[in-house]
Amino acid sequence: MKKNILILGGFGFIGSNLIEDFLKNGNFNVIVFEFRGLINRFANQIKVYYGDFNKEEDIEIVFQENQIDIVIHLISTTVPATSNDNVSYDINSNLIGTIKLLNIMLKYGVKRIIFPSSGGTVYGQIAGDSAKENDPTNPISSHGITKLSIEKYLLLYQHLHGLEYLILRVSNPFGMYHSSQKQGFINVVLKKIIKNEKIVVWGDGSAVRDYMYIKDLTFILTKIIENDIKNQIINIGSGVGVSIKEILNLLQNIVPNIEIVYESARNFDIPKIVLNVDKLKSMLDFSLTDLEKAIFLTYNWHKKKE
Amino acid sequence: MKKNILILGGFGFIGSNLIEDFLKNGNFNVIVFEFRGLINRFANQIKVYYGDFNKEEDIEIVFQENQIDIVIHLISTTVPATSNDNVSYDINSNLIGTIKLLNIMLKYGVKRIIFPSSGGTVYGQIAGDSAKENDPTNPISSHGITKLSIEKYLLLYQHLHGLEYLILRVSNPFGMYHSSQKQGFINVVLKKIIKNEKIVVWGDGSAVRDYMYIKDLTFILTKIIENDIKNQIINIGSGVGVSIKEILNLLQNIVPNIEIVYESARNFDIPKIVLNVDKLKSMLDFSLTDLEKAIFLTYNWHKKKE
Repeated sequence: MKKNILILGGFGFIGSNLIEDFLKNGNFNVIVFEFRGLINRFANQIKVYYGDFNKEEDIEIVFQENQIDIVIHLISTTVPATSNDNVSYDINSNLIGTIKLLNIMLKYGVKRIIFPSSGGTVYGQIAGDSAKENDPTNPISSHGITKLSIEKYLLLYQHLHGLEYLILRVSNPFGMYHSSQKQGFINVVLKKIIKNEKIVVWGDGSAVRDYMYIKDLTFILTKIIENDIKNQIINIGSGVGVSIKEILNLLQNIVPNIEIVYESARNFDIPKIVLNVDKLKSMLDFSLTDLEKAIFLTYNWHKKKE
Repeated sequence: MKKNILILGGFGFIGSNLIEDFLKNGNFNVIVFEFRGLINRFANQIKVYYGDFNKEEDIEIVFQENQIDIVIHLISTTVPATSNDNVSYDINSNLIGTIKLLNIMLKYGVKRIIFPSSGGTVYGQIAGDSAKENDPTNPISSHGITKLSIEKYLLLYQHLHGLEYLILRVSNPFGMYHSSQKQGFINVVLKKIIKNEKIVVWGDGSAVRDYMYIKDLTFILTKIIENDIKNQIINIGSGVGVSIKEILNLLQNIVPNIEIVYESARNFDIPKIVLNVDKLKSMLDFSLTDLEKAIFLTYNWHKKKE
């Protein structure tokens, strides 16, 4: 029998891509929980519950009415850029909200949770070439701290209650179904290029990130779930560091004459984050889409949409 | 001019000993913030504010009325044994409470905070002989996770706002002015011995802890403050592992015929925690009271009190 998979925040960027893959492959029955009012192209093909993540009754009804096998928890009420402005809100909505979710899962005997954590923020400033799963974690945003705290509670609930967690520290994904204006450098820039708007770069363009095409991420995520991997913390990224300047050069191959404005770096931006993906590679066979090709696919998707 | 030091939770175990030392040495003006109703032998010698740690207005009035130089934050609303029963309460009262405190400190320009964290719980199960400051941190109690999360926010506030933190991961202190019935093995056992009650040991007595005489801890804490050490995480302990059985043997030298009952180990108890104190030793000269002597001093203090 197909497993019932509940995707919390399923109509966001990662969620939409995951749902598209799941619908195509037919490997799971998909149920989505989302904030009220969020419209999505997949909404009429799956069972959707609308509600407030911080209201226990809104979450509980989903578990009452469905025999959930796996929860994928994609809800995040903040992004790094906003989280430092109201730390208490960040803790309340993300950390305490997740604790309530875990307690409901225990109540209904649901043992399995997949939590995409933030590979880009939980480590903070890295010392070496790339960050390994057991490296020090000193986030410089509240967003990163709440993600890290949730990780610690998942480990605790494993120890105390036998919860089966999977913590995936995801790097910087980009690609189709991206709509945020605040987060995701490549997508935000592509949208501006298409609208002929100026591009703002925070810092001098030397900042290095680990970019990954969203469809590679959802492919890996699906494989990890199908292979029953659990109780692990795993970095998911390309393992390759690319600077903002290099990204802008690639973009100029697609659209010449991009107007770029350099502004001062923000205090929650780290100079460099690259994920070490040796652990992931030891668990799974996969190949990644060429960066330029992936950017071009994303560009075309945005162009078609505008 | 003498510095004004605010001790939050100053009438607890560590706080009472600190105040006694400060009053003896006259090195600071001491102000205490405590829960309403807590009686303390030092209350009439210092300025005391009574209030609720989770009410911002109760905390803020202290900063309005006093020019605080240093905050020592000793308030903890849970112990490891109780924290897992209500995780949301633990996060709300300790973590969010501390964020509110930090924001008030920023508002009043108070830059300096000393936070005794929990050396016994933040590391979780240790791999080697002893835990170093940059070792992995995987607590198996919510108490340990909230302490760790507070540590991360102190680092964040340093980065964002220039807050000067000092995180002291304290081992298992014991000694005079201890009143908890829930926490502190040596003190709890001594009280039971004096009352001729049975001693309950959770587990087989092989559990190893890093015990430290409270007056050694407060001596070290005072020196660290006086030496202006800041923006550091420092283990404070003996660096020596002692099993529960060894403690019981030492106690039997003082009082023979102790009645001991062994119960199953609890799920928040770790088999072994010893702190590596190399960093502390590199910063400070100190010697520690002999364990048997310290236990004897504590025994006499409890006996006199009963």
